[in-house]
Amino acid sequence: MGKGTLKKALLNQTRDLNLSISATTRAARPGEVHGQHYFFVDQVRFREMIEEDAFLEWAQVYSNLYGTPREFVLNHLQQGRDVLLEIDIQGALQVKEKMPSGVFIFIYPPNLKELAFRLVSRGQDSKDSIEARLAACENELKHIDYYDYLVVNDKIDRALQKITAIIIAERCKIKNLNMR
Amino acid sequence: MGKGTLKKALLNQTRDLNLSISATTRAARPGEVHGQHYFFVDQVRFREMIEEDAFLEWAQVYSNLYGTPREFVLNHLQQGRDVLLEIDIQGALQVKEKMPSGVFIFIYPPNLKELAFRLVSRGQDSKDSIEARLAACENELKHIDYYDYLVVNDKIDRALQKITAIIIAERCKIKNLNMR
Repeated sequence: MGKGTLKKALLNQTRDLNLSISATTRAARPGEVHGQHYFFVDQVRFREMIEEDAFLEWAQVYSNLYGTPREFVLNHLQQGRDVLLEIDIQGALQVKEKMPSGVFIFIYPPNLKELAFRLVSRGQDSKDSIEARLAACENELKHIDYYDYLVVNDKIDRALQKITAIIIAERCKIKNLNMR
Repeated sequence: MGKGTLKKALLNQTRDLNLSISATTRAARPGEVHGQHYFFVDQVRFREMIEEDAFLEWAQVYSNLYGTPREFVLNHLQQGRDVLLEIDIQGALQVKEKMPSGVFIFIYPPNLKELAFRLVSRGQDSKDSIEARLAACENELKHIDYYDYLVVNDKIDRALQKITAIIIAERCKIKNLNMR
């Protein structure tokens, strides 16, 4: 089961958790609603928003721009709700810089589980040997220390239980209580 | 339901979690087994252990001494198991100094819930006015920032779910993976 299934199940069963809505310059597809699936903006407006520091993160994918509007996220947080961002490493690094209090969960495919654990373990293997074996996901794993949690997506129920536990636990944190 | 019920349920349903066994100078009661209910030691040995820094925390209760042996806890951690310590604020402060990587959960009685939230919220009420109302538990709440999590023990199932979530989440933490 992929990350999409995990995401849907998580949003369905977690109270006060919303999916972030991205801004994009790509054209709306049939059935897509502005403000529900995406915020559809043109290139000029998107570039303006970058200048205004209106994004927690943004990226170019082929000729289209995608970004996470900061205001949408902050509005939800101020209402005591959490916002789920489904982003890659590059996005996560940008968000972490702009919002270091965010909670960063590294969702990892099951077949690389052992390798992930090895890379983060203390110098059991040489860094070079690990990197050679992890060529394909080298860049991702190098940044694992920027994340707070690792969840291996081996079985959907187990991964879901872990992510749910992380959300519940974070909501019990003393340092987060004054934000809720 | 009190903390005892919560503790038993937690230990029953959580894998790789053991209750810490305290050392004490008090006499064993009928049915109490050395190394199972307590480590029974005499005053001389207990004082030696204090000198040897063998306790994560210790306290005198009336004429008896009670302490958490460091070795018991470390042995379990090295085997990838977690250890539950049921201690008061004074104990928690000692443990935090000796083992800052520990996870500290403040279990709070339900009727003081609102007051607890107020004290940790940012300057909504004056510190003086809160402290006056919280005279009885003043000392405990003053130290809440030393804890990582707050769990209000309002309903046993809810409190249990939260503590379980905290344990699962902590086990997913990147910084803890190399210890397991």
